[in-house]
Amino acid sequence: MRTQVAIIGSGPSGLLLGHLLRASGIHCVVVERQTRSYVESRIRAGVLETVTTDLLHRLGIDAGLNANGLLEEGFALADGDRLFRIEITRLTGKHVTVYGQTEVTRDLIAAAPERGLEIVWEAGDLAIHDIDGDRPSVTFTKDGAEQRIEADFIAGCDGFHGPSRKAIAAAGGAAEFEREYPFGWLGILADVPPCHDELIYANGPRGFALASMRSPTRSRYYIQVPLTEKLEEWPEDRLWDELAARFDPISQHGVTRGPALEMSIAPLRSYVFETMRRGRLFLAGDAAHIVPPTGAKGLNLAASDVAYLSDALIAHYRDGSDAALDAYQARALARIWKAERFSWYLTKLMHRFPDDGTFEHRMQSAELDYVASSPAMQKVIAENYVGLPL
Amino acid sequence: MRTQVAIIGSGPSGLLLGHLLRASGIHCVVVERQTRSYVESRIRAGVLETVTTDLLHRLGIDAGLNANGLLEEGFALADGDRLFRIEITRLTGKHVTVYGQTEVTRDLIAAAPERGLEIVWEAGDLAIHDIDGDRPSVTFTKDGAEQRIEADFIAGCDGFHGPSRKAIAAAGGAAEFEREYPFGWLGILADVPPCHDELIYANGPRGFALASMRSPTRSRYYIQVPLTEKLEEWPEDRLWDELAARFDPISQHGVTRGPALEMSIAPLRSYVFETMRRGRLFLAGDAAHIVPPTGAKGLNLAASDVAYLSDALIAHYRDGSDAALDAYQARALARIWKAERFSWYLTKLMHRFPDDGTFEHRMQSAELDYVASSPAMQKVIAENYVGLPL
Repeated sequence: MRTQVAIIGSGPSGLLLGHLLRASGIHCVVVERQTRSYVESRIRAGVLETVTTDLLHRLGIDAGLNANGLLEEGFALADGDRLFRIEITRLTGKHVTVYGQTEVTRDLIAAAPERGLEIVWEAGDLAIHDIDGDRPSVTFTKDGAEQRIEADFIAGCDGFHGPSRKAIAAAGGAAEFEREYPFGWLGILADVPPCHDELIYANGPRGFALASMRSPTRSRYYIQVPLTEKLEEWPEDRLWDELAARFDPISQHGVTRGPALEMSIAPLRSYVFETMRRGRLFLAGDAAHIVPPTGAKGLNLAASDVAYLSDALIAHYRDGSDAALDAYQARALARIWKAERFSWYLTKLMHRFPDDGTFEHRMQSAELDYVASSPAMQKVIAENYVGLPL
Repeated sequence: MRTQVAIIGSGPSGLLLGHLLRASGIHCVVVERQTRSYVESRIRAGVLETVTTDLLHRLGIDAGLNANGLLEEGFALADGDRLFRIEITRLTGKHVTVYGQTEVTRDLIAAAPERGLEIVWEAGDLAIHDIDGDRPSVTFTKDGAEQRIEADFIAGCDGFHGPSRKAIAAAGGAAEFEREYPFGWLGILADVPPCHDELIYANGPRGFALASMRSPTRSRYYIQVPLTEKLEEWPEDRLWDELAARFDPISQHGVTRGPALEMSIAPLRSYVFETMRRGRLFLAGDAAHIVPPTGAKGLNLAASDVAYLSDALIAHYRDGSDAALDAYQARALARIWKAERFSWYLTKLMHRFPDDGTFEHRMQSAELDYVASSPAMQKVIAENYVGLPL
């Protein structure tokens, strides 16, 4: 098979890129290792910047978003029992939208056939070839047979564990930057009303907790746990008790309990692979960078990568100009590093770090005091939270 | 001898406090271990917030300040060869004033006799007694004779190495917080015109450098050096070469060389002793806290301590109310910790930390990029630089 752009991975970045290219008449194929039902049921992020929702509106794949997205004009930071609101809309004129990544993914998949976006599911043994030449290709097995897609370009949208970044790393000379955190997030998803109308990021004596939601009837909570913690140490009741202790004193409605739809522990990581382009292979989204989830930048950063990359590929085919392709890595990295910065800042502000001494604890308290008292600092947080301009 | 307030130390905090109390008719005595000429010739800070200049204007000890103070409406941050200006007056409506601490001290000493502020110089073997009782006292030797001053209150304005904090620490139960930095500042003072009309805080591949001034004809420069560095390793020419390499490419006028009036290496430290009051002894200024010099908060924080403490002592004598004395520590600490926060932030932003890994370097670059691009973040820096409200 021959295509113009072969896209590896059917997460939001691959699907968004595919739809944007199709909307400009560019031929592309999405190749995905997993089954459709697996991809459609993954539980991920849920807070969208306008950078992300603008792409969905532009594509017209926004019926679900328009019907069910919750416009959020603020969020809360809690320092112990003191809750203060970051009024993001008043401070920036923008808002964020609560709408699950799971729903975004389903909407994009559902719209694929009518827009001629082909998705190959369950592609095994994915491999990338000849990225330094003019004729790169992707090979995989499907229903027992080996297949090959030749393309002008390959877009590696295959996440942190996919083959694309590894293909660049294997070629040598790549630059990567990483920081791991000495804790993870224990999360629970349940069909219960949220404890608060807006998100609460809370720092307390027992560490970080987040009260979030996916809809008016579906809540998403997290607490900071040591990396050594095992999921089996957290029966649902124990986690609900912990969440009630954290959020009942500060939230509008208190914590409502219900059966877990999902529970998991995820480590936190800051990671940037700066070599986002090699030859005809371009990385976008988690394939190139990971942020800690504090501040919900991961999905939105994938969307801004895709906005830059789709513009660049469209300019190549429409205008015959490769200037934007050549500028892609630098443009993307400038925004990525600022989002890494903010995610790191908010993580440091809201978590207890086991190695911090008493001076660092006081610095954290002083920072929270300062944020609570300074409209200028609240604007800094707000403009990052809603997303810096493209 | 008997007085109302015995003040230990004739630095800016002790002298300001003494003058403020005298202006309200309160009897006080300043006791100083050093000679007058030693105190008058110490080279210290030179950037005054309005919090500090307001006190000098209120006292009317401002002839030198009015004649020679340089109003600064901005300062520059440099990231390698990129210089960007923090427009403090446009962003905050305030300015800072370049006027040497040395000059402030001389002005306050010169005004002491006419205002009935007694200063005892060369007081040896200073000791503090009975701070938990109603009759605290200070003893010292002067011209070979032991003397005692009984007072209602003692103000410990005797700096980091003075006896006041030690007296509280010796009583037990005090809370202190400290962070040391793995580098120091090598400074030079010379009667040469400054290389730039405003201060430049510069971060480059060879670390931090600061181009500052005390007047249009007197420059003050610093560079970051490892703590192991010795002053004798830095002949003046070597330092001028280094400064020229840093500032010639980015400053308006380039570095003018001249004989050093002073050269020294000072370590950087963040330190807060939270027990700022015990019984009838109150600490103010460096006796209770040290900031790294980045951002010039040390002297200004002493001034805000003194503003709070003088108000509280005046309320005691005028209204018979001890509420402000009881609130002094909490009021002072709220501002101190925010200044510690800012000094720490600016130190981390502008220095190379030897233990930082590549991720931390990228975070620092991202922070500088963000500051350069965000008016909101520039306002945050500006409002801290001009001084948070009392």
